[in-house]
Amino acid sequence: MRRHEIRRGSYFDSVILMQLQRSLAEEEGVREAGAVMATEANRRLLQSRELLPDHPDLSDQDLLIVVRAEDEVVADRALASVDDLLARKPRDVAGSAFRPKTLAAAVDQLPHANWVCISVPGRYAAAVAQEALDLERHVFLFSDNVTLEDELALKERAAGVGRLMMGPDCGTALLAGVGFGFANRVRSGAIGIVAASGTGLQSVSSHLHELGAGVSHAIGTGGRDLSDSVGAFTARQGLEALARDGATKVIVLISKRPSPQVVPVVLRAALAVGKPTVVAFQGWPAPAASLGPLHFARDFAEAAQLAVNLIEGSRRSGEAVFGGLTQGRHVRGLFSGGTLAGQLFEGLKPLLPSLRSNLASAPDHQPEDLFASDGHVILDLGADEFTAGRLHPMIDNELRLTRLESEGGDSRAGLVVLDIVLGEGAHPNPAAEFARPIAELTSGNDLDVAVVLVGTDEDRQNVGEQRAILEQAGARLYRAVCPLLNDIAYSLPIGPAGVGEPIPLAHLQQKPAVINIGLELFARSLADQGVEVLSLDWRPPARGDEQMMDLLARMKE
Amino acid sequence: MRRHEIRRGSYFDSVILMQLQRSLAEEEGVREAGAVMATEANRRLLQSRELLPDHPDLSDQDLLIVVRAEDEVVADRALASVDDLLARKPRDVAGSAFRPKTLAAAVDQLPHANWVCISVPGRYAAAVAQEALDLERHVFLFSDNVTLEDELALKERAAGVGRLMMGPDCGTALLAGVGFGFANRVRSGAIGIVAASGTGLQSVSSHLHELGAGVSHAIGTGGRDLSDSVGAFTARQGLEALARDGATKVIVLISKRPSPQVVPVVLRAALAVGKPTVVAFQGWPAPAASLGPLHFARDFAEAAQLAVNLIEGSRRSGEAVFGGLTQGRHVRGLFSGGTLAGQLFEGLKPLLPSLRSNLASAPDHQPEDLFASDGHVILDLGADEFTAGRLHPMIDNELRLTRLESEGGDSRAGLVVLDIVLGEGAHPNPAAEFARPIAELTSGNDLDVAVVLVGTDEDRQNVGEQRAILEQAGARLYRAVCPLLNDIAYSLPIGPAGVGEPIPLAHLQQKPAVINIGLELFARSLADQGVEVLSLDWRPPARGDEQMMDLLARMKE
Repeated sequence: MRRHEIRRGSYFDSVILMQLQRSLAEEEGVREAGAVMATEANRRLLQSRELLPDHPDLSDQDLLIVVRAEDEVVADRALASVDDLLARKPRDVAGSAFRPKTLAAAVDQLPHANWVCISVPGRYAAAVAQEALDLERHVFLFSDNVTLEDELALKERAAGVGRLMMGPDCGTALLAGVGFGFANRVRSGAIGIVAASGTGLQSVSSHLHELGAGVSHAIGTGGRDLSDSVGAFTARQGLEALARDGATKVIVLISKRPSPQVVPVVLRAALAVGKPTVVAFQGWPAPAASLGPLHFARDFAEAAQLAVNLIEGSRRSGEAVFGGLTQGRHVRGLFSGGTLAGQLFEGLKPLLPSLRSNLASAPDHQPEDLFASDGHVILDLGADEFTAGRLHPMIDNELRLTRLESEGGDSRAGLVVLDIVLGEGAHPNPAAEFARPIAELTSGNDLDVAVVLVGTDEDRQNVGEQRAILEQAGARLYRAVCPLLNDIAYSLPIGPAGVGEPIPLAHLQQKPAVINIGLELFARSLADQGVEVLSLDWRPPARGDEQMMDLLARMKE
Repeated sequence: MRRHEIRRGSYFDSVILMQLQRSLAEEEGVREAGAVMATEANRRLLQSRELLPDHPDLSDQDLLIVVRAEDEVVADRALASVDDLLARKPRDVAGSAFRPKTLAAAVDQLPHANWVCISVPGRYAAAVAQEALDLERHVFLFSDNVTLEDELALKERAAGVGRLMMGPDCGTALLAGVGFGFANRVRSGAIGIVAASGTGLQSVSSHLHELGAGVSHAIGTGGRDLSDSVGAFTARQGLEALARDGATKVIVLISKRPSPQVVPVVLRAALAVGKPTVVAFQGWPAPAASLGPLHFARDFAEAAQLAVNLIEGSRRSGEAVFGGLTQGRHVRGLFSGGTLAGQLFEGLKPLLPSLRSNLASAPDHQPEDLFASDGHVILDLGADEFTAGRLHPMIDNELRLTRLESEGGDSRAGLVVLDIVLGEGAHPNPAAEFARPIAELTSGNDLDVAVVLVGTDEDRQNVGEQRAILEQAGARLYRAVCPLLNDIAYSLPIGPAGVGEPIPLAHLQQKPAVINIGLELFARSLADQGVEVLSLDWRPPARGDEQMMDLLARMKE
């Protein structure tokens, strides 16, 4: 015996519906019950429980209540009890007996509440967040189903007034030890987190706790913050705030698959922070294990472990190695091997947006003139376009010697990088040929020469002897590209980290007071943590009627 | 005083031209000299040395000789000596006094030479390599400027006859301790290398030597082997051969930026080898630190260190953990957190080409039906399409409980993966709700349930208590996705590694004998290593006249 009821255009908090469904199912003689907004997902779920009535015109805005019972009388009685069940007030948060109906009233009632936690249905969420930002409150926006356009507009607005706009679809945050949304209880400590990933943030903070470390602040940004459309507003604001926060010694920066175009923006912001930062970006190929103070992790457990290591000071603090680069002069890579050139190119690309290379796949990163250096450039001189009709540059040094000389005559050059690959088939004594021009380049002016030297002590050129000659000439020697990348990263001048107005640090450091709009369970969770919280008695404008909402919005303008 | 001479349509070995240029420059009264094929790169180089004559119609096929001298008489005398200088024979390799003019004659003269080393100019290289493969010889093709179409055709041919086609643009290889092309002298040892990157191979082998380890065989593939056009023929052949080679205990697999479409093909081949394998792919985001026996390195120094660790047996050997998967049954991921779902999806994608997910960006990896599992599928049930109008699955377990039940009724399901995220805001006791259905699923049939559990001992649900309940119910517990990925990778049935005919292992294990075609310096280097080598007295067909070459080729058909 199945009975159902449809209430069109109704709005109820999802928690209330869950409670309604449970109450109905517990009534005597009721076998199963469903009380859901009739979205496709919910309809499919009812169908699999054989509870879906045959109604072709159900919409997302409709409340659908279904009861299967032992007989008709029980079922009808259950449906008749719905209004009573819905009228039951949710258990109130201690101390908020009077629930204001507008955000403005709530702000009057709790004026030191700098944070607004919003979990209303997606289609109402942007307007509520906008109102909170207009009142210069930070926003924790749990709601999803918000458009990218709305997200960008909200974040631009927030950056303009120096407020954080966490979300939409921000599952979690930890601010001054208080968990917002879904959050694990972890020790307070020296590690700050900025995360475009809710479970990423929860995983890292849980791992840190298990390792005996703790969290200063963990700022969720919403999973789309590092998309092309949004451009990492919240991540950059968060990094800049953690840069100023004295309690934060090390940062962990996490994102779901970021846009490759946005990664360089965020990495430069992280570099500008000047604190050791662990980066865990899903689906983005880290070009090395580290780039100066940035350390790349492949998963959250590794990220947590790296962060703990960095606090314990196992890594050196950074210092600029290449004087010319600190002055904004250019990197010129003259490689004989494509792979090493590619490694340096991929490693520097996020830090130097204007970097060009004949290895670049994008045409606008190709050098304008292959035969004359301009700007930051990394060349593979063993590529087809250079080797047709001549010997490979591992055998014949002429091409590189000539380029080296012209770099010496260019006042924009700050660092020349060469690879020298020893072994069978290669030039019998490359160090002897490069020593004089290297000595000329490095003497006097601020031009450095770095050499990546590949070979063994059994090679006929002997790696130790070659190294000695090149160091004697004034080159800085490396056995691999990654340590060179680190030294370059520490030498590059990087602008400020932030975007927009800086957020007031006191807001982050004081115990938060919060206005909650939406799911009551979040207010209860905040109150359980000893936070002052005020819940709005929120209802959708015009009871969710979209035409009426448009009309109301136009009347306000 | 500058004089020049142009010899149109001439061909000379690049080493001979380098020697000619040096000899001219050393003549008394000569200030500078150039002797180059007049490619754009070479013309630009001459120009920068102010040696380029004003000749608008120079082509790549023309030999250009330029001399700057103290007076006209000296310059003319120098140019007049060119024929004599060119007529000087290059120093012959010991023991090859008679130089055959054809490959067929060379094979008759040195029939046990299984390897042909080719370094003729690119436009002749494909035809020479084809001839070597027709004679069932392995090819080491140093030449670059070979088309992708030719490369694919050569590699298909090689796979068909069970021969290796290393290159084109293969800079280096180490076969049974002998270095081909550019190669460092390194200890013999237990680590095999397959590398689509010349300097990558040289870097790793040098690092291994420095770490006290050694190399069994290092197979170069040419830098484009892992491109879409080529499809990793040589890498797969190399992996399959190293699988059979008893001396090889650990493999290092390297590539310049591989095609994302080809990566899964190569990784599955590496998995099929059944030996621990370190993978270092530039520009490809490793989804974890390891996937079963595959260990991912971000640079060559790390790759070498990992390989050495693996030899020393610090990692467990693999064993299948999930019985249902070994039988080809399916993975079903039912996640509440998008990031953890994404991690599992990205990690399994290379191993399971048919894997689908609502997180996939490609439409053909989206599930056909979001509400019913089919094949391997990873779902983020916290995504917008599931959460509109209902509570998030971290709070309300109903959606996942229903799905879990239907997985139990599907005989194709082999492993169900859940994440359970504890903390503020989340369900107060998820383990209690999941325990019964997990116990039902795991009792009796070959269906496993794995749970990734996120939380701390200070969370009100207490991670230790939740873990105990879930383990009691029969679930396998993980604190992060990566160890789960490893267990899945060890449980998947993977086909054979190779492609085409397997190459005869004896050819790889015996000291090679080599026929050299092209740069004489490579023959000298092989002879220096005690290898029997025979150099061809090679000339381009029809002295490089392309029309005549075409005519000759058609007459052969």
